Amino acid sequence: MEIYKLLKQVRAQKPLVHHITNWVTIYDCANIVKVFGASPVMAHAKEEVADMVNIASALVLNIGTLTSAVIESMIIAGKAANNKGIPVILDVCGAGATKYRDEKSFEILDKIRVSIIKGNSSEIARIAGKNIQTKGVDATEDANSSTDLVKTAKLLADARDLTVVITGKEDIIVDNKNCFYVKNGCDMMANVVGTGCMATSVIGTFAAVSKDLSIAAASGLCCYEIAAELAASQSKAPASFKQDLLDCIFHLNEDNITKMQKVSSERVLFYN
Amino acid sequence: MEIYKLLKQVRAQKPLVHHITNWVTIYDCANIVKVFGASPVMAHAKEEVADMVNIASALVLNIGTLTSAVIESMIIAGKAANNKGIPVILDVCGAGATKYRDEKSFEILDKIRVSIIKGNSSEIARIAGKNIQTKGVDATEDANSSTDLVKTAKLLADARDLTVVITGKEDIIVDNKNCFYVKNGCDMMANVVGTGCMATSVIGTFAAVSKDLSIAAASGLCCYEIAAELAASQSKAPASFKQDLLDCIFHLNEDNITKMQKVSSERVLFYN
Amino acid sequence: MEIYKLLKQVRAQKPLVHHITNWVTIYDCANIVKVFGASPVMAHAKEEVADMVNIASALVLNIGTLTSAVIESMIIAGKAANNKGIPVILDVCGAGATKYRDEKSFEILDKIRVSIIKGNSSEIARIAGKNIQTKGVDATEDANSSTDLVKTAKLLADARDLTVVITGKEDIIVDNKNCFYVKNGCDMMANVVGTGCMATSVIGTFAAVSKDLSIAAASGLCCYEIAAELAASQSKAPASFKQDLLDCIFHLNEDNITKMQKVSSERVLFYN
Repeated sequence: MEIYKLLKQVRAQKPLVHHITNWVTIYDCANIVKVFGASPVMAHAKEEVADMVNIASALVLNIGTLTSAVIESMIIAGKAANNKGIPVILDVCGAGATKYRDEKSFEILDKIRVSIIKGNSSEIARIAGKNIQTKGVDATEDANSSTDLVKTAKLLADARDLTVVITGKEDIIVDNKNCFYVKNGCDMMANVVGTGCMATSVIGTFAAVSKDLSIAAASGLCCYEIAAELAASQSKAPASFKQDLLDCIFHLNEDNITKMQKVSSERVLFYN
Repeated sequence: MEIYKLLKQVRAQKPLVHHITNWVTIYDCANIVKVFGASPVMAHAKEEVADMVNIASALVLNIGTLTSAVIESMIIAGKAANNKGIPVILDVCGAGATKYRDEKSFEILDKIRVSIIKGNSSEIARIAGKNIQTKGVDATEDANSSTDLVKTAKLLADARDLTVVITGKEDIIVDNKNCFYVKNGCDMMANVVGTGCMATSVIGTFAAVSKDLSIAAASGLCCYEIAAELAASQSKAPASFKQDLLDCIFHLNEDNITKMQKVSSERVLFYN
Repeated sequence: MEIYKLLKQVRAQKPLVHHITNWVTIYDCANIVKVFGASPVMAHAKEEVADMVNIASALVLNIGTLTSAVIESMIIAGKAANNKGIPVILDVCGAGATKYRDEKSFEILDKIRVSIIKGNSSEIARIAGKNIQTKGVDATEDANSSTDLVKTAKLLADARDLTVVITGKEDIIVDNKNCFYVKNGCDMMANVVGTGCMATSVIGTFAAVSKDLSIAAASGLCCYEIAAELAASQSKAPASFKQDLLDCIFHLNEDNITKMQKVSSERVLFYN
């Protein structure tokens, strides 16, 4: 898996990554795409989202501060993305916190073809049908048993025919053949709002330049989390860490990535 | 008053603090709650706010970029919070700048039981019935006579049966028995957008772990402003100051707080 | 042209700059106004925008995440600003990316008197009637031939009777008599989301204290970009650069500005 090669493609191709996202981390989602060398655009009016998709290379949807109007635009944009054949990445931010988030997540999954679904352990467990509560947008402890998570991800990947990404101490990426593990990252990420949303934007950025979506997701997360490790080695508090994380992404190079990457994969057996 | 004890409770209990807030400082409001060790969630769709309140420990409302739809959601959420018995903290951001802000502030105060109302001197004066103009979201000079402010706060506290917080060079917290003064903080705070909104989120975070709301408000503000003093001692311009403020909050300890806290209180006489 | 004199006026008068802007960079737009020493306010409810304009000294409109409701409020606010006689600054963010953005940009220009229109080379070319595509909110290469840009700006300035600002490596400011060039700035600005939107807020801040709008725009951009040069000399990655940019603005002085300013002007001939 050539992680650095994909990063180079992002920087060379500068793909346009269209987002319909939440109002909390919308700046960070745009900014991380830019810092990776690509071109973000955020647009949510139903009158224009299909046109914006038509010049974009990936569509990122994030339900963090969903409303019915925003969901309507997501579905219009998603259909345009499906027609154009670009990947759709869905962050089910806060699924499992309210009935409304669950219902709208399912509505999106039913009405458009999502390519990659991403969430923390609670969010993905809920979308996979488990009776799990999410604490707002934070994972709850009872959702965090690693073996179960792979099984849950696999069930969802099969049921919906998509790539499932569960982020956490160890990220799990499952499609219909393989499971990738990304063991990079650091604890400080959990002390900053937006690290989860930014992860999704990074996945979208890498998916914009690669046909293999699971490898794109694993590569993007690996780069992002290597930068987080580099940042954590120089800053010991959340705000300076966040700044250093962005700066380290900008300066990521082949040497960092080759030496620090902790990505592994395995064939996924079918569960029943 | 055991300020550090409350900070420890925030860090140990990690309460979920639900916000319906403005689009300018929404990230900062979430992030400061996180940096204090608690768990923020921002959700404003009328279909889900009551469900989100049901898993939260405090509700923060901030009218900074109000619309009629957002106010409707605030009232639904506020009623759910009243039913559940969790504190409702209202930042009357920009009251006194437009008639609409005044009217909507009164509508919220009439329709739900607000536990703590917070504003700068102009905003609170207007809500207390004075003919004061607010300069957008900034206090005007003529609202800043300290003796009058305590009187104004006391009148509002009595009339509405709530805790009133006026932030400024010296913060004033008044309930039906006491007046607390927090004299921590520094001038640089006024050079950064969002320090007022973050103060409200901090109050909400501390109110989530304490039954005495005035003490919660005073303790939260004291911690926040001690961190600001620490930050100001190392950074001399707004953006680096803001980063240091967040980093200093993360590392606040008993020693800082004990040595630096400038909180005093007095019984409040009735005015007429 | 006394650039520093205008900066001093901003700091002394602290004008209120009302924005109706996008959800991506709304914080940055507010914060840069504050760091320059003025007072930002963001308000978009149609019920209050006219009242807010009535206490403001300039109105900044930015269509970055436009919706029909936001455009409606922009037009109400713009008419109030026209009545009051304060400058209206329009950032046609993303014009040329979708038909909707073009149409709404023209609707604003037709319904209210815009004082200054600002965009990158693609955006302004589209508004001037060229068949140019914008890559989301980023300029496309084919829009970047400097001679043509002045001609394009001049045509638009004449057709709409306003000041046209095209930002880029070299900023071009054209009104019915003169063309100003601002050659300050640095490449790192392009690696941070929001530098374009902040430029518009800076223009609005300077336009709030000066009757000559082209000189206000050139002076504001010059100050902003001198701070960017100072920041780039000390930080080599986007996030630390952004922080340093804000800090350097706060400490800008007569000496910096006099030594570093690269503003020139020429009479503009009529093209046909």
